[in-house]
Amino acid sequence: MKIIGIDPGYAITGYAVIDYVGNKFKLLESGAVQTKAGTSLPKRLEKIYDDIVLLINKYKPDAISVEELFFNRNTTTAIGVAQGRGAVLIAAAKNNVPIYEYTPLQVKQGVVGYGRADKKQVQMMVKTILNIEKIPKLDDTTDAIAIAICHAHSFRFAKEI
Amino acid sequence: MKIIGIDPGYAITGYAVIDYVGNKFKLLESGAVQTKAGTSLPKRLEKIYDDIVLLINKYKPDAISVEELFFNRNTTTAIGVAQGRGAVLIAAAKNNVPIYEYTPLQVKQGVVGYGRADKKQVQMMVKTILNIEKIPKLDDTTDAIAIAICHAHSFRFAKEI
Repeated sequence: MKIIGIDPGYAITGYAVIDYVGNKFKLLESGAVQTKAGTSLPKRLEKIYDDIVLLINKYKPDAISVEELFFNRNTTTAIGVAQGRGAVLIAAAKNNVPIYEYTPLQVKQGVVGYGRADKKQVQMMVKTILNIEKIPKLDDTTDAIAIAICHAHSFRFAKEI
Repeated sequence: MKIIGIDPGYAITGYAVIDYVGNKFKLLESGAVQTKAGTSLPKRLEKIYDDIVLLINKYKPDAISVEELFFNRNTTTAIGVAQGRGAVLIAAAKNNVPIYEYTPLQVKQGVVGYGRADKKQVQMMVKTILNIEKIPKLDDTTDAIAIAICHAHSFRFAKEI
């Protein structure tokens, strides 16, 4: 089962494509869509949309998994992230890929087995599960991997959004 | 100059297409993209995106005008609206239509000439400026008309986002 995990943003959108077969994970690709600060917001959103569509066309994933938006106090950031997330959701809908969302707690639960795990523990588990030597440079990419793993571990109980 | 004014949301996205020639306004079309509560969020965003693209293709507007997002206390609503707004921005970017945003204060200023105007005053001015007998049923549509009129009155000083 191929899963694209995505950690949405408007400046950095982390992504990871994993294949999950017989309880084994393989990382097919991971990285981040980065948009430049000087670019207009519509063009940044378009780039996120286009790059996610490219990933979908390349890997034909069975599902896309994203983190549920966090209602934090910084509304300006939340609004920016929400617009980036909108780009991801439209890319999924346009290509008929089912999309699932998980809370940060569910992601930690699904990766480490413990909802209050810290960042380091999540990173360690990501390395171990995927059998990779180094975690990605960007936290957004690691988060995207964790979100993808979470879906692999939880999809039987998950509800499409 | 053809302008599409849009009042974004995820349940109701008001829109209005106006033509502004020689200080005269003509309302070409107005209405709302409505998405059903039972539909998944990605599909709702896709519908908003698709319907705005249809409007753009039909009218070939010179500009799209949207209201700047309000950081109100209801973050859940703000996040929903932000995702709907993302759909509008991507539709504009994909079709190379410049997009402009105005604060609620600027919209009132641009329509009534007074930033603290109330809803009734805005509605009255919309009726008068467009020479229409009745204001639209949905507030979202009237707001979209006001946003379009605001751009017609302010575009000389406006900055593309």
